[in-house]
Amino acid sequence: MTVNDRTPTSSGFYVTEEAPIHADNPVRTPSSPAPDILRCAYMELVVTDLAASREFYVDVLGLTVTEEDAETIYLRSLEEFIHHNLVLRKGPVAAVAAFSYRVRTPEDLDKAVDFYTELGCRVQRREDGFVKGIGDSVRVEDPLGFPYEFFHAVEHVERLAWRYDLHTPGALVRLDHFNQVTPDVPKAVRHYQDLGFRVTEDIQDSDGVVYAAWMRRKPTVHDTAATGGDGPRMHHVAFATHEKHNILAICDKLGALRRSDAIERGPGRHGVSNAFYLYLRDPDGHRVEIYTQDYYTGDPDNPVVTWDVHDNQRRDWWGNPVVPSWYTEASLVLDLDGNPQPVVARTDASEMAVTIGADGFSYTRKDDAEETPEYKLGHQL
Amino acid sequence: MTVNDRTPTSSGFYVTEEAPIHADNPVRTPSSPAPDILRCAYMELVVTDLAASREFYVDVLGLTVTEEDAETIYLRSLEEFIHHNLVLRKGPVAAVAAFSYRVRTPEDLDKAVDFYTELGCRVQRREDGFVKGIGDSVRVEDPLGFPYEFFHAVEHVERLAWRYDLHTPGALVRLDHFNQVTPDVPKAVRHYQDLGFRVTEDIQDSDGVVYAAWMRRKPTVHDTAATGGDGPRMHHVAFATHEKHNILAICDKLGALRRSDAIERGPGRHGVSNAFYLYLRDPDGHRVEIYTQDYYTGDPDNPVVTWDVHDNQRRDWWGNPVVPSWYTEASLVLDLDGNPQPVVARTDASEMAVTIGADGFSYTRKDDAEETPEYKLGHQL
Amino acid sequence: MTVNDRTPTSSGFYVTEEAPIHADNPVRTPSSPAPDILRCAYMELVVTDLAASREFYVDVLGLTVTEEDAETIYLRSLEEFIHHNLVLRKGPVAAVAAFSYRVRTPEDLDKAVDFYTELGCRVQRREDGFVKGIGDSVRVEDPLGFPYEFFHAVEHVERLAWRYDLHTPGALVRLDHFNQVTPDVPKAVRHYQDLGFRVTEDIQDSDGVVYAAWMRRKPTVHDTAATGGDGPRMHHVAFATHEKHNILAICDKLGALRRSDAIERGPGRHGVSNAFYLYLRDPDGHRVEIYTQDYYTGDPDNPVVTWDVHDNQRRDWWGNPVVPSWYTEASLVLDLDGNPQPVVARTDASEMAVTIGADGFSYTRKDDAEETPEYKLGHQL
Amino acid sequence: MTVNDRTPTSSGFYVTEEAPIHADNPVRTPSSPAPDILRCAYMELVVTDLAASREFYVDVLGLTVTEEDAETIYLRSLEEFIHHNLVLRKGPVAAVAAFSYRVRTPEDLDKAVDFYTELGCRVQRREDGFVKGIGDSVRVEDPLGFPYEFFHAVEHVERLAWRYDLHTPGALVRLDHFNQVTPDVPKAVRHYQDLGFRVTEDIQDSDGVVYAAWMRRKPTVHDTAATGGDGPRMHHVAFATHEKHNILAICDKLGALRRSDAIERGPGRHGVSNAFYLYLRDPDGHRVEIYTQDYYTGDPDNPVVTWDVHDNQRRDWWGNPVVPSWYTEASLVLDLDGNPQPVVARTDASEMAVTIGADGFSYTRKDDAEETPEYKLGHQL
Repeated sequence: MTVNDRTPTSSGFYVTEEAPIHADNPVRTPSSPAPDILRCAYMELVVTDLAASREFYVDVLGLTVTEEDAETIYLRSLEEFIHHNLVLRKGPVAAVAAFSYRVRTPEDLDKAVDFYTELGCRVQRREDGFVKGIGDSVRVEDPLGFPYEFFHAVEHVERLAWRYDLHTPGALVRLDHFNQVTPDVPKAVRHYQDLGFRVTEDIQDSDGVVYAAWMRRKPTVHDTAATGGDGPRMHHVAFATHEKHNILAICDKLGALRRSDAIERGPGRHGVSNAFYLYLRDPDGHRVEIYTQDYYTGDPDNPVVTWDVHDNQRRDWWGNPVVPSWYTEASLVLDLDGNPQPVVARTDASEMAVTIGADGFSYTRKDDAEETPEYKLGHQL
Repeated sequence: MTVNDRTPTSSGFYVTEEAPIHADNPVRTPSSPAPDILRCAYMELVVTDLAASREFYVDVLGLTVTEEDAETIYLRSLEEFIHHNLVLRKGPVAAVAAFSYRVRTPEDLDKAVDFYTELGCRVQRREDGFVKGIGDSVRVEDPLGFPYEFFHAVEHVERLAWRYDLHTPGALVRLDHFNQVTPDVPKAVRHYQDLGFRVTEDIQDSDGVVYAAWMRRKPTVHDTAATGGDGPRMHHVAFATHEKHNILAICDKLGALRRSDAIERGPGRHGVSNAFYLYLRDPDGHRVEIYTQDYYTGDPDNPVVTWDVHDNQRRDWWGNPVVPSWYTEASLVLDLDGNPQPVVARTDASEMAVTIGADGFSYTRKDDAEETPEYKLGHQL
Repeated sequence: MTVNDRTPTSSGFYVTEEAPIHADNPVRTPSSPAPDILRCAYMELVVTDLAASREFYVDVLGLTVTEEDAETIYLRSLEEFIHHNLVLRKGPVAAVAAFSYRVRTPEDLDKAVDFYTELGCRVQRREDGFVKGIGDSVRVEDPLGFPYEFFHAVEHVERLAWRYDLHTPGALVRLDHFNQVTPDVPKAVRHYQDLGFRVTEDIQDSDGVVYAAWMRRKPTVHDTAATGGDGPRMHHVAFATHEKHNILAICDKLGALRRSDAIERGPGRHGVSNAFYLYLRDPDGHRVEIYTQDYYTGDPDNPVVTWDVHDNQRRDWWGNPVVPSWYTEASLVLDLDGNPQPVVARTDASEMAVTIGADGFSYTRKDDAEETPEYKLGHQL
Repeated sequence: MTVNDRTPTSSGFYVTEEAPIHADNPVRTPSSPAPDILRCAYMELVVTDLAASREFYVDVLGLTVTEEDAETIYLRSLEEFIHHNLVLRKGPVAAVAAFSYRVRTPEDLDKAVDFYTELGCRVQRREDGFVKGIGDSVRVEDPLGFPYEFFHAVEHVERLAWRYDLHTPGALVRLDHFNQVTPDVPKAVRHYQDLGFRVTEDIQDSDGVVYAAWMRRKPTVHDTAATGGDGPRMHHVAFATHEKHNILAICDKLGALRRSDAIERGPGRHGVSNAFYLYLRDPDGHRVEIYTQDYYTGDPDNPVVTWDVHDNQRRDWWGNPVVPSWYTEASLVLDLDGNPQPVVARTDASEMAVTIGADGFSYTRKDDAEETPEYKLGHQL
């Protein structure tokens, strides 16, 4: 069943009981049970200029330094009580060293080892952790080529939620999610469902091509998402604010610092997730989203939302254009030896190609015969 | 170990690994496993004037009517996809007929039956549900005297999150929590821990008296709380907004309608939960909280916060006084025959008595020798 | 003295004591004193489909109908106490019939007559006003071709500031300003200075070309502005909200109504004026700005801000691109017989041409040798 | 005509063409013309502990230090371009040394000298100003005993409106107004009308007693207000924020610093002015209001709003109680020799006495027979 066969909601998207995603070339499902993932917990980023990155994440964005040395900075958001949500490590090539998830119990690490071993993946385990503040950890090269980490033991630090004397106008309060670029979205979704993730939203066309999917463990719209494109690459890491004006304040501050070119896209309202968003690029080009106010998804029968790829409000509810770089650029990811994973090209249709330009189209109202007025920038790219 | 033996955080409260609550007279722990509760889902309120209640909840607060008839109105918040979050039923005595929780699977209803049967509680099960929109349900008179309901099967309705054309300035987006008044807080906490709840915060004194405790299933600060007082009674039901200005807008609208006397307490910032809050009283005196921006609590080792009862910022972070009615007034709860449960007096110290007036005291800074200036209203009650 | 000879402020623009604008071909200064203008008061818009316009301004934007009949609708903002801020009149050609200003006294109308008569302009006076709710009025075809109106006598209506029960999430509280497109900006500025306006900000290049200027009577950044382009045409009329989230709520609502294509540009933060903004297009293409939080300008020595036309943060402080339609499209204006004024082409350089595309350039940091990264959309148009 | 003879608006207050205030014992009107006042510009405060005051105004409230030395600190708000809005001067007795207004031209100082000389007031003029950054200035002991200052010449400093890197969550952007306590409000109003002020709102009872009045030069609700009480004393000085959340952020920060006892009243919504407000007390007890979003009052026929003193929403639109200290406490003011002015007792009825307690009453709905429920704190004081 494709999006065309269904009845849209009064908001224009489609709702189904379960993600109607079929993978032609699935990763096989292990017999070993998946570890019980609590939430995305931190990302380890390799950056080429540690001082420049510190300025961006600490001085501009206001993340709190838990600990730092000449090579590495450990940062957390204001409501976090574990050691860090972001590790900046100096290295020769800007890339992602780990997408790290916290699991419910120490025993879940054994499950992680078995799960990935059965899949034939490279697996490393370190009792003392790969980074400071974290105990026993498992790192793997997952079947899609992403460096995934799992841990339970972690150093507790003070949750600064009440420390309003430390809050800035653009206060980041939580790590919200990761976003991964991968050529075959259905394959990724099927695999992450095996790992225990649940799909909350996706973007499809009437031929059943899946352009992106959002998947969660904690009851928000996502802990990670699969975005169709050349991969494995990291699309972005997202931090949450409490209110929308906090996000606007980050834009205002970047303007004041004459760093407005760090703003890639937004601010705006997503169609997918209904969250208010902003995309920044850090000094290495790593993309950071600032995000607030998606919805509760914790019920097992939470309705899955499917968006038509030609719906011009799916990526921005206000119809504002998505800049090309947002579709095409992303960060390399590292294997367990610290070398960049080779990037494989997407073969399915590209979301950018099918929605803008000579060969694409987007609509504001599905059955609108009339053309959208010329002043909508999305039509001019 | 009492609050006096511990080291406070830089925000003035105390953090422990697990709720340090001891019950002298506990409800026994059943051998039957507890049902897997997802979240607080709806409250059934008996109201004496259905038209007046409809005006309050629909015209003033903007809840959405899913369905209604001459006796009953089914209401939901804007981001809800289940049939309702609040049932208003016409009846002779204003009271609460059910605190209703959604469970993960249909099988959890069998567990609920066994759990409460083993405890010797009255248990009723109806395959068609006790109210419209809900399927197979179990209602019990719990060991503390509260009418608890559990269900899984429920009618899905459209989630109106994206329908901004329907949003009002004070848009209520989620049911957030219940709050129950009970004479013996440690007893209540121990019992609800048996039911699978986890304590996130509490209020104690240096003698170990527990004045209130907050407990969660979904990863927010609470799905319900136990407030010390004459009980069983219902203290309040809480709905969430996205932003603080939404809560201020409700106050502004009540002023415009010359109904400002519906505002009982607030708006303000809680110490406990760190949320922004407002307390209203509906036409029957049922208390409704409007609430936003507490923090994520989903990790199993989420730090438990303990507040000193004499800390004047525990209930209002800005030190604004708690009005006496907020401590003393609450709604009756019904047994399974629809008769009000008798109210048992609290014998432990009263939070109001120990914090204000001739026999109480509160501090802004714990070690402040100086008296708080006279203009703080809390000192004058 | 050009922008290049001056020292910029720490925010990147330039400040002078008085607008350094020289007009080569000025309108002569009348010997008759100018009327004492209080503020921009209302715009009379001719619309081709009155029902469609009503839906836009009343149902979507929430303006209050003071009075209406089959041909005309009189609308006001929530804090207004005069009869209207906007008149929608049904007519064959979408255009502006009047930019109307309120003057301090009835006698100022005599001054207006003398002022414009001396300039050889067409002048009409009607004791009963040209529209309902307004008394004795003077309308002129001003030296730049714009239909200007002046009045003092006006019907008072209830100021709805306190009627929060009537407020919507995107509540419009005041008419803020007009914006006029004219080929020769210095000529316009000189003339409006004769009429008593004071320049607050402008955009220039190092050759002294003036691209736009902002002028005020009330102590905000402007009551009207002159934007360089083919004219006389009306660029936009602007309404104010109290907060930024009110503007975002308008975008969200347009998305929910599947009318996101009414959003032309923004939301964003202006460099000029420092206000938060959004540009919409009404059913006839008339441009409406929603605007909030500029600054007080009422002192006679209020510093005049000059922006370099190549500063990419001048129009949007976040560096987001200005869509071409915003530069090129505008509404016709009518003469006193109701016929559209002929449009004269601008001969000075076009702001769009000098800032984007092959022949233009914009900088984020003036002395940045490096090119702005490709992902900034402004560089791709 | 008293409030009882008039027809209220739909919001419950009364509107008249002009302030219906009669003074029994007026200051006589000078034949000399009044100086043309632009706006309230700065207050000079004497503080007893300069370091403590600096911490409060700079570290907590975030005002910008323009200049400072061992005895004096010159502070400004973020959108100000004149040297300062607040002077903190170390002295033996906490008091106000000057309510300072900026006038339109240097010649207005001559007018000020003549105006007050004719009234028999003490007048001092200093060409170099009484404080740094200000030129030629006139200080007087006005007929009501207040130290008023007038100046035009002033040092310009950078307006930091665009410097969002310097903004805090509670950013203060403008000085908004003063508030003066005086025994005879009608006498004060009449005198300040002679000085060119216009009344925008007042509070009266049905006997014609005037409890307070608000008066403006710039087109906001006030530049100063007369509050009935023992005087001359200074009730408060007010700074403006852009949004309501900025004010809440100040409360949150005071909580985090364990200084919540600096919050005297609020936050809340005023009835009078319709602004959102908060009252703080500085280390010397000087009262500071934080204020946002009143309305435009610049038209000469701006409707004057009269509130019934028994309307419980006049001071707080949400009906929250006014703490007694807010009515009774205020700062001394100095004569031109630096000695405190003697305080004269009010003989008219006290607003506090007529509205709360055994001899007073307040209503939410004027014609409500029913008593307000007991939980409204205002009824319990």
